[in-house]
Amino acid sequence: MSNRFQTKQIQDLDAQHHLHPFSDHQSLRAGQNVRVIVKGEGPYVIDSEGHRILDGMAGLWTTNIGYGNKELAQAAYDQMVELPFYNTFFKTTHPPVVALSRKLAEIAPAHINQVFFGSSGSESNDTAIRLIRHYWALKGEPKRRIIISRKNAYHGSTIAAGSMGGMSHVHQHSYPVYEGFRHVMDPYWYGDSFPGETPEAFGLRAARAIDEEILRCGPENVAAFAGEPVQGAGGVKIAPSTYWPEVQRIVDKYGILLLADEVITGFGRVGTWFASEFYGIRPNLITFAKAATSGYIPLSGVLVDDKIVEALMSTDDDFNHGYTFSGHPVACAVALKNLEIMERDRLVPKVKETTGPALAKLFARFKDHPLVGEVRTVGMLGAIELVADKKTRKRFDDPGRVGLICRDHFFREGFIMRAVYDTMVCAPPLTWTDAQFEEAGAVIQKALDQTLADVSGELAA
Amino acid sequence: MSNRFQTKQIQDLDAQHHLHPFSDHQSLRAGQNVRVIVKGEGPYVIDSEGHRILDGMAGLWTTNIGYGNKELAQAAYDQMVELPFYNTFFKTTHPPVVALSRKLAEIAPAHINQVFFGSSGSESNDTAIRLIRHYWALKGEPKRRIIISRKNAYHGSTIAAGSMGGMSHVHQHSYPVYEGFRHVMDPYWYGDSFPGETPEAFGLRAARAIDEEILRCGPENVAAFAGEPVQGAGGVKIAPSTYWPEVQRIVDKYGILLLADEVITGFGRVGTWFASEFYGIRPNLITFAKAATSGYIPLSGVLVDDKIVEALMSTDDDFNHGYTFSGHPVACAVALKNLEIMERDRLVPKVKETTGPALAKLFARFKDHPLVGEVRTVGMLGAIELVADKKTRKRFDDPGRVGLICRDHFFREGFIMRAVYDTMVCAPPLTWTDAQFEEAGAVIQKALDQTLADVSGELAA
Repeated sequence: MSNRFQTKQIQDLDAQHHLHPFSDHQSLRAGQNVRVIVKGEGPYVIDSEGHRILDGMAGLWTTNIGYGNKELAQAAYDQMVELPFYNTFFKTTHPPVVALSRKLAEIAPAHINQVFFGSSGSESNDTAIRLIRHYWALKGEPKRRIIISRKNAYHGSTIAAGSMGGMSHVHQHSYPVYEGFRHVMDPYWYGDSFPGETPEAFGLRAARAIDEEILRCGPENVAAFAGEPVQGAGGVKIAPSTYWPEVQRIVDKYGILLLADEVITGFGRVGTWFASEFYGIRPNLITFAKAATSGYIPLSGVLVDDKIVEALMSTDDDFNHGYTFSGHPVACAVALKNLEIMERDRLVPKVKETTGPALAKLFARFKDHPLVGEVRTVGMLGAIELVADKKTRKRFDDPGRVGLICRDHFFREGFIMRAVYDTMVCAPPLTWTDAQFEEAGAVIQKALDQTLADVSGELAA
Repeated sequence: MSNRFQTKQIQDLDAQHHLHPFSDHQSLRAGQNVRVIVKGEGPYVIDSEGHRILDGMAGLWTTNIGYGNKELAQAAYDQMVELPFYNTFFKTTHPPVVALSRKLAEIAPAHINQVFFGSSGSESNDTAIRLIRHYWALKGEPKRRIIISRKNAYHGSTIAAGSMGGMSHVHQHSYPVYEGFRHVMDPYWYGDSFPGETPEAFGLRAARAIDEEILRCGPENVAAFAGEPVQGAGGVKIAPSTYWPEVQRIVDKYGILLLADEVITGFGRVGTWFASEFYGIRPNLITFAKAATSGYIPLSGVLVDDKIVEALMSTDDDFNHGYTFSGHPVACAVALKNLEIMERDRLVPKVKETTGPALAKLFARFKDHPLVGEVRTVGMLGAIELVADKKTRKRFDDPGRVGLICRDHFFREGFIMRAVYDTMVCAPPLTWTDAQFEEAGAVIQKALDQTLADVSGELAA
C-alpha cells in the first residue's frame, strides 16, 4: 500500500516548519522531496513509502546496537517514572549519574576516572576547550591557550567547537572563528602523500607537522593537541600505524595536553571501548557522545584524567561551567543499559574478532572496481574512495558530485552510505551478522556499477 | 529505615567519578555530603534518607508538569521502539520532528513558523548567535555583528553562549570571551533605581541604556539585542511595565533583530505559552529548552521568524550548522505529549487565573518580614530579596552568605528554593494545588524566621 498522501503531507509540513541542520534551505524546500523515515528495526530503517533500507551509517555513527531495542525503551520508561530529572548543580546527585560515571571510569583508560556530562558532542568539546584552558591557568601558565587540531577535523557545531574543527566551509560563515586554534595537516595518506611515500613515512611526516606548528606558536603558548583517533566526518581517514605513537611522543616532549575526540570512535567502533586504547595513546581528555546511548537519547561527556582533576581540586574557586541537562538521569539510565547490553552480547570483542574482519573482507572485494581508488577499514568503520583515475588517484571534477550520484544509487538499492565529497563512508551497527554483510555486498556491487555507468565517460582510459 | 550505608556508598562513588556542573570541586569532595535525590512524585522529590521535599524550583526551571508522569514515560517507550533515532541532515525527516515543529509554530507568536532544534539552551543560543550574524551577512550587511545583551543575563554555558551572558564570574575564567558582545544594565528596579525613582521611570531608563550602547557601537555595526523576558538565573528580575515596550521601540527604530531567550519563561511559566506574548514584544528569534519536555529528556530549539527564514532561503548555500541530535525523535515525541498534557490540563491559562495569583498572594504574606526587602512574582516565577536594612535596601556583607543559610533552612524544612546571592528564587511546577501553596507558606515562614535568628545581630535597628 502506498502512503503517498501521508508522505506528501509530512513533506509539506516539514517544509513549512522544520529547519534542518547543515542544509541548503532553498533547494530543500524547492523540491519538498525529503525522505520520511518512520520506523527502525534492528539494522534496518523503513521509510513512509514502505522501503526497507539497510542502514550502513547507524543513524549518524550512533545506533551501535541497532533500532527498536525494547530493553533501552524499558530503561527509559522506568527511569522517567522513578526520577525523570534532577539537576546536579547544588551539591545534589542521583543514582543513575553515579552508576554511569563509575561504569565509564571502568571502561576508560586506567588513568581516567572522572566524567563531566553534556548532551551532545558539541557541548562536550566546548567543555573540553574550557577545561584545557582552565587547567593551564590553574597550573600558573595562563598564556598556554593555543589548541592545535587538524584540517578536516569535525569537533561539533557550537561556535567554539566549530572553530576547533578544521572544516573550511564551516569557517567560511560571516562570523569569525573563536581565537586560539591552529590547524595542521590530517594523516590522509591516500590523498596527501608524495609519490612513492610509504604510509609509515607519511604518518611520521603528518605527526611532525604538529611539532612544527608548536615551534611556530612558541611551545610556551600551546595548551593541547586535539584529534579524532579516526577522522570520521572528514572521510573516515585512518592514520598510518606510525602516526599516533609519534603524536604521543610530541605531546609528551612539550608536556601539552592531548584531547581525543571519540564522539565517533567511542563505545566499540574499532574493537576496543575507546580507540585511544586501540592506538595506544594516553589522552588527558576523551570526549564522547552518540553511541554512548546508541543514540536513543541525547547524552555526551568528557572523560577527564587524574592530572586535570587534581588541578581542579587545587582551588576552592568554582569551575563556572555546566548544563541543566548535565548528567540527565534518564539519559544516564539508558546509557547504562546500552553498555550492559554491549557487554552481555560481546559487541566490542566481536568487532575485533568477527564483524571488523568481515567489513574489511567485504570492502576488499571492491578495491579492483574501476571507480575505486582505495578501500580502507578499521573495526566497523570503512571508506571507499571514488576516483576518475585509479593509477594517478585523480579525482572527478566538481568534488562531491559523483559521491552524491553514488549515494543516491545506494539509497535506491536499499543501503545507506554517506558521501563525504567522493568518499563513501560506512559505520554500521555493531550487531551486523553474515546476512547483513552479504546484503551490503550485493548492493555495493550494484550501486558502484550504476555509478560507473553514469560517469564512465569521465574515467581515465 | 535509614539508607545511610547506601547513601555513603553513592556519595563516595560520586566523589570518585562525577564532575558536577558549576561547582567548587575541592569542597564538594572534601565534604562528600552531596544529597542523593532518588525519586520524584508529582511536586515532590525524595532523597536517599527518605526525606520528602517540595520542589519549588521544578528541578531547574524544567519540570513544569511535575515528576513521575507515566504518559511521558509511555511516549518515550513507544517512540524508542518505533524509531529511537534518525538524523535530519541529508534530506531526511521523521514524523515526530514534523509534528512537534508544527505544534510549536502553532503556539508561537504568529510571525514565527519555523524551528531549528538542539538539545540544550546553550546549544540553541549558540545557534541563535550564528543565525543572527548569518542573517545580516545574507542581507549584505556583514559588518553588523555586535549583539547587545545585559549584565547578569544567563544564556548558557558554551563559550559563545556564555559570552553573550552577562555573568561576570563566568567571564572571569582564563579564556577570553567570544568577540562581539556588549552588556548593558538589567532592568532591576529594586537594586538599581535612584532614590525616589518610580519603576516606570526606571524601566524607561534601563531600556534607553540599549539605545545609548547602540550609538556607542555605531548603529551600522549592531546586529541584535538579546534578553530573557524575565531574567531567571540572574535573580528572577521582573522588568517594570515600561521596559519591554521601550525595548521594542528601540529595536524597531534601528531595525536590529530581537532575540528572546525563553529557556526559562517558555511553556506557560508566566501564563502565556511564551513570555513574549505576555510582554507584547515581537522577537525575531525565541530560544527555548528545559520545560519543552518538562525536562524529561534533553530538547531545545530556536523559533525563527519568517523574515530570517526568507533570508536563509534566498541562497542555495548551506547553512553549515547543526547537531547530530537536532530533532531527536524520542525528544520530539516526549515534547509533543508534554504540550498535549499542558493543553488538556489547562496548565497555561491556570497560571493566569489560579496558580500565578496564588503565588503572588503567598509571597505577599512575607513582604513585611524583617529580613525581606522585596517580594516579586510574575506567573509562577517568584523572588524574595533578603536585606540587612529594609528601609535603605542595604544588603548583608559577603553577598550570598545569608542566601545559603536561608536555602539550607528551606531544604531542611522540606522545601527547595534557589539562592541567587541573597535573593531566594522560586519556579514551582505549574501543577501546584492549594495544598502545595499552603505547605510552602508554612515552610517559608519557618525558614525565614530561622534565618532571622541566625543573622539578627546584623540587621539594622
